[in-house]
Amino acid sequence: MTLTTDFGFRDGYAGAMKGVVLSLAPGATVVDISHGVPPQDVVAGAVALAQAAPLYPPGTIHVAVVDPEVGGARADLLVEAGGSFFVGPDNGVLSLAARANRRIWRIEAPAFRREPVSPTFHGRDVFAPTAGRLAAGASPEEAGPRVEKMTDLAAPVVRQRAGRVEGRVIHVDAFGNLITSIGAEHVTPEASIEVEGTGGVYHPVLARTFSDVEPGALVAYFGSGGQLEIARRNGSAAQHVGAERGSIVRVETS
Amino acid sequence: MTLTTDFGFRDGYAGAMKGVVLSLAPGATVVDISHGVPPQDVVAGAVALAQAAPLYPPGTIHVAVVDPEVGGARADLLVEAGGSFFVGPDNGVLSLAARANRRIWRIEAPAFRREPVSPTFHGRDVFAPTAGRLAAGASPEEAGPRVEKMTDLAAPVVRQRAGRVEGRVIHVDAFGNLITSIGAEHVTPEASIEVEGTGGVYHPVLARTFSDVEPGALVAYFGSGGQLEIARRNGSAAQHVGAERGSIVRVETS
Amino acid sequence: MTLTTDFGFRDGYAGAMKGVVLSLAPGATVVDISHGVPPQDVVAGAVALAQAAPLYPPGTIHVAVVDPEVGGARADLLVEAGGSFFVGPDNGVLSLAARANRRIWRIEAPAFRREPVSPTFHGRDVFAPTAGRLAAGASPEEAGPRVEKMTDLAAPVVRQRAGRVEGRVIHVDAFGNLITSIGAEHVTPEASIEVEGTGGVYHPVLARTFSDVEPGALVAYFGSGGQLEIARRNGSAAQHVGAERGSIVRVETS
Repeated sequence: MTLTTDFGFRDGYAGAMKGVVLSLAPGATVVDISHGVPPQDVVAGAVALAQAAPLYPPGTIHVAVVDPEVGGARADLLVEAGGSFFVGPDNGVLSLAARANRRIWRIEAPAFRREPVSPTFHGRDVFAPTAGRLAAGASPEEAGPRVEKMTDLAAPVVRQRAGRVEGRVIHVDAFGNLITSIGAEHVTPEASIEVEGTGGVYHPVLARTFSDVEPGALVAYFGSGGQLEIARRNGSAAQHVGAERGSIVRVETS
Repeated sequence: MTLTTDFGFRDGYAGAMKGVVLSLAPGATVVDISHGVPPQDVVAGAVALAQAAPLYPPGTIHVAVVDPEVGGARADLLVEAGGSFFVGPDNGVLSLAARANRRIWRIEAPAFRREPVSPTFHGRDVFAPTAGRLAAGASPEEAGPRVEKMTDLAAPVVRQRAGRVEGRVIHVDAFGNLITSIGAEHVTPEASIEVEGTGGVYHPVLARTFSDVEPGALVAYFGSGGQLEIARRNGSAAQHVGAERGSIVRVETS
Repeated sequence: MTLTTDFGFRDGYAGAMKGVVLSLAPGATVVDISHGVPPQDVVAGAVALAQAAPLYPPGTIHVAVVDPEVGGARADLLVEAGGSFFVGPDNGVLSLAARANRRIWRIEAPAFRREPVSPTFHGRDVFAPTAGRLAAGASPEEAGPRVEKMTDLAAPVVRQRAGRVEGRVIHVDAFGNLITSIGAEHVTPEASIEVEGTGGVYHPVLARTFSDVEPGALVAYFGSGGQLEIARRNGSAAQHVGAERGSIVRVETS
């Protein structure tokens, strides 16, 4: 089982979730993906989960809690996709990792909830109990009614014109690397790349990895997730360029 | 077994403790509650442990190390309370989680210490070995002499006058939510709440959860620990109000 | 198995490595030493690993990834030393923990790599698979060719003249404590210590532990790793002194 949250590292919230899981499934292996997702940043949580989840063995239970609308109208979900399970709020945080061949249930059965459910902490009172029950052998059908739809994050923007592709920065990682919405199919070896930030327009060199350019230079490359990324060797591209999620990235191929 | 410390995430200190535990009890499950307690903040460590510990199965060994007086006169303690064990310095960090029906031992037996004990790192040299020995089947009686008392944190202030209760912020969490000393028994549904910070006096709306108010608004609600809390929807109440631990919170019920 | 990286806590990179390990060695115990090594700070990563690794049982597999030259010419290494294994890039990050009686292999065998290997994420595609294979019972000889040398970090500077020793701050920990290159053999009980920072020259009192001095005072003592350290009671010596890695520390013994 994995945990991905925005609970940070000062409090006992993530620790409380682990206690609930281990109470229901004493032998479970509980692994932290991240508790450092920026507070209430659903997209960043979805990206972190999607970076890590595909590397886990089938059957793994992934719990993600970035949940600014907790206690409101949004549903609590359990999703099966690609042979693994995803548990969290219906706000898109599961949607990049659980993309295809989904079966979706609302978590409503009392056995999958810790009553009384706190309206501000479904991580402890709904998602951890659900994960614990599954780890202890329960079937997802027991969680509640099957539903057809869940919230998907908007697909990242990529606009194509003749010889030109325009995309966006979709994530800034902890190194300050810019992960873009532009896939390899849009980029030729001779392409020229530009990225726009508050610091101006920059032209990273297209290369294979950081160490192909001089220290301090900007480099564009295909990252470990297959997307075009922009980094600064021995530094932070985000700071240097003044870029953030949503910043514009252009590829000219002719 | 759980770990709660202020060791942070840059160094190998928490990792060293885990190594000691796994050397003594190779099959132990070691779970991080938090290593991000603000440095030397005993109260924050006590709050994090108390948030998480009650969710763990009976028999769990909880180690907490926030220890500014390490190597001085304060005792090293092992406490049994509510069927679980608590290991750490005698400075109050264990006292919110280990509250009732306590049996307390000083850790003095050589088998529970890693000689020579460093005067600056009892986490590695006293508390981890104690936890490892317990996990490997030792009895708490073997740790050292039974004692009657331990340091308790001062009870949080709540002053009552007719129709009015005054309490304090006892913890600011990583989201900037303000957890107060005021329990549900002091608050009626029509109560008016105020909180005083460097930014002035604010009046949060009493509701059930964050999403009951507009983005940017302050909301008061009963948190997952049962206390009155104050949050800002999609933001940090602590920053907005200029509040910190010790800030005054008032409830007018008439 | 332990993990030490500079991946931080916002992304799924460390979580991806754990997934690879658990896919290859489902029953493995994977323990975080730190993912908070400052970005690309090879020395800090080496210090964190060296603080923790010696406390683990023999046979433990330690993976360290602080890897600014990833995808370039530096080798991927597997090292056996003191009965334990160390996996990471050949840039010195393993060298403080794996110091003596080393056997060194380059990781080149396809079974120890996840093809196609991303040129920016050998943590996921080389080091995690290697650790997973070892944990599942593979022999280090299978990883690739044995080599004789690996990159060692420069030995910390200690200059001796009659009655005077000059060393350096080699690490600043998360508390702001200054760990120096000066060992106990250079310090007599009557020695006078000085440390130079941007704030001036300071003279900490030589004592046994923090609580031997008044709150706010600077104290020099032998740390849990055996080196001379300088701390400020209830504060940060690094901030107070304006010291960082490389700052000069002097011991006068006559």
